[in-house]
Amino acid sequence: MLKVALVQQSNSPDNQINRMKLSASTEQCAAEGAQLVVLQELHDSLYFCQTEDPSNFDLAMSIPGESTDFYGKLAKRCGIVLVCSLFEKRAAGLYHNTAVVFDTDGTVAGTYRKMHIPDDPNYYEKFYFTPGDLGFKPVETSLGKLGILVCWDQWYPEAARLMALAGAQLLIYPTAIGWTSNDGEPERKRQLDAWMTIQRSHAIANGIPVLSVNRTGTEPDDSSNSQGIEFWGHSFAAGPQGELLAVAPQREDSCLLVDLDLDHSENVRRWWPFLRDRRIDAYHDLNKRYLD
Amino acid sequence: MLKVALVQQSNSPDNQINRMKLSASTEQCAAEGAQLVVLQELHDSLYFCQTEDPSNFDLAMSIPGESTDFYGKLAKRCGIVLVCSLFEKRAAGLYHNTAVVFDTDGTVAGTYRKMHIPDDPNYYEKFYFTPGDLGFKPVETSLGKLGILVCWDQWYPEAARLMALAGAQLLIYPTAIGWTSNDGEPERKRQLDAWMTIQRSHAIANGIPVLSVNRTGTEPDDSSNSQGIEFWGHSFAAGPQGELLAVAPQREDSCLLVDLDLDHSENVRRWWPFLRDRRIDAYHDLNKRYLD
Repeated sequence: MLKVALVQQSNSPDNQINRMKLSASTEQCAAEGAQLVVLQELHDSLYFCQTEDPSNFDLAMSIPGESTDFYGKLAKRCGIVLVCSLFEKRAAGLYHNTAVVFDTDGTVAGTYRKMHIPDDPNYYEKFYFTPGDLGFKPVETSLGKLGILVCWDQWYPEAARLMALAGAQLLIYPTAIGWTSNDGEPERKRQLDAWMTIQRSHAIANGIPVLSVNRTGTEPDDSSNSQGIEFWGHSFAAGPQGELLAVAPQREDSCLLVDLDLDHSENVRRWWPFLRDRRIDAYHDLNKRYLD
Repeated sequence: MLKVALVQQSNSPDNQINRMKLSASTEQCAAEGAQLVVLQELHDSLYFCQTEDPSNFDLAMSIPGESTDFYGKLAKRCGIVLVCSLFEKRAAGLYHNTAVVFDTDGTVAGTYRKMHIPDDPNYYEKFYFTPGDLGFKPVETSLGKLGILVCWDQWYPEAARLMALAGAQLLIYPTAIGWTSNDGEPERKRQLDAWMTIQRSHAIANGIPVLSVNRTGTEPDDSSNSQGIEFWGHSFAAGPQGELLAVAPQREDSCLLVDLDLDHSENVRRWWPFLRDRRIDAYHDLNKRYLD
């Protein structure tokens, strides 16, 4: 059994306070036996992509750098594998939305640069993040191969499949998603349900568990073009048949501890041998934009 | 608005009786305004793949042939588009699991040969069906482009995506799936939920509705190796955000009529522009079996 922890929190404009909260939660999870701790997307700061403001690039950090030092030490102190989500400064004018995985000794086990970048009202990520160029490669850790993907990636079955084909034993999605005030109650329900459904479907299609960690709380839109985003929480863990194992609440900070049986995946894949029957002779058009 | 009908039924060993029931249901749906009627997988007979018996090849029919004459006339008489699922005899020793779509004038609008073929205890389809060689091409009808896929295909996001990229406005899955007596209640729930979840996820990923028509009733296993299959019904329609629009019961025959707003798909895709951001530069490994 692998004990994993999903740390969902509301953030403040003070990055030091955010980090201290994340640190305390991670230590608490480790004390309760967590071996793997996953933090939400861009967990150090507010979700700054609600507006396009060049001064926000000041939030970006080199990797390795001060930020990875901090989280590497945290991972080592707790003796855990830690999945972080950072705003990476690669060069002047070249930034990524990057997940960094630390192993139990505090070293960087691997990184993943978000491949699919959204751009919608309140989520102007194409302004900030260059699409990832590391492909879909699982990160090898002392706990196994982790298929790290980030937020918008979760809507793409291609990404999950490629991670599974490369041997990922687990899919992990640090996320920042919520509602805007335009969304009425039925639309809110449809969006939340779609978000859980599509990620659970990646578990099903590939016969491996999925962990998704979302932020909570409402964050203002500095442009005043909207009333901001109400992040919907609901961080969750699903097993290899897509079955929900645990779900965090909508509005509260939460440390969700879940026991995963990674060996169970093989049993599920024996009964549902989807990988056996893929028509790789007939999938070449997946590399095309559209077929018209 | 497009009024669609999903005809779910339990079958008997008498194919004539099965056809008469299907005919009556289709006429009833048309009388209630259905423009598109979808029948379940291999609807003329019992689900004969529970055993590997060469004499079952006698059930296969040439296309065109007696069977397509029958259903073509039904479609024309009702003035509907009709989606059928037939056991196709292409040549001696060469058989397919083939969907045939009839347009309102009774002509064949197009066919689809099941691409992904399962083979599990009680579902020995690899013995009977040569994998399809027509690819994933929507069928153009007077009601729009229909992305017809069949049963096991439903576990493959690749199939749904390829249909959507080729312009399908709707995904349609004639199906035959159920439980065996080995499955306890929690496993039954997980399987049914996974089956609905993965198909709803295809709606979400592609921003188009999904119709899935499953059979109901229990059919014996002639080999006596098992107690047969309890087909779980639950035929359903989902909208382009994966939202459930209607679900048939588990055990009863059912004609499920649903109004679909195909124009709504464009609106959903404007807000959730997943097709815009696909990383077609990074998907080439989807054409591989495994990456180890």
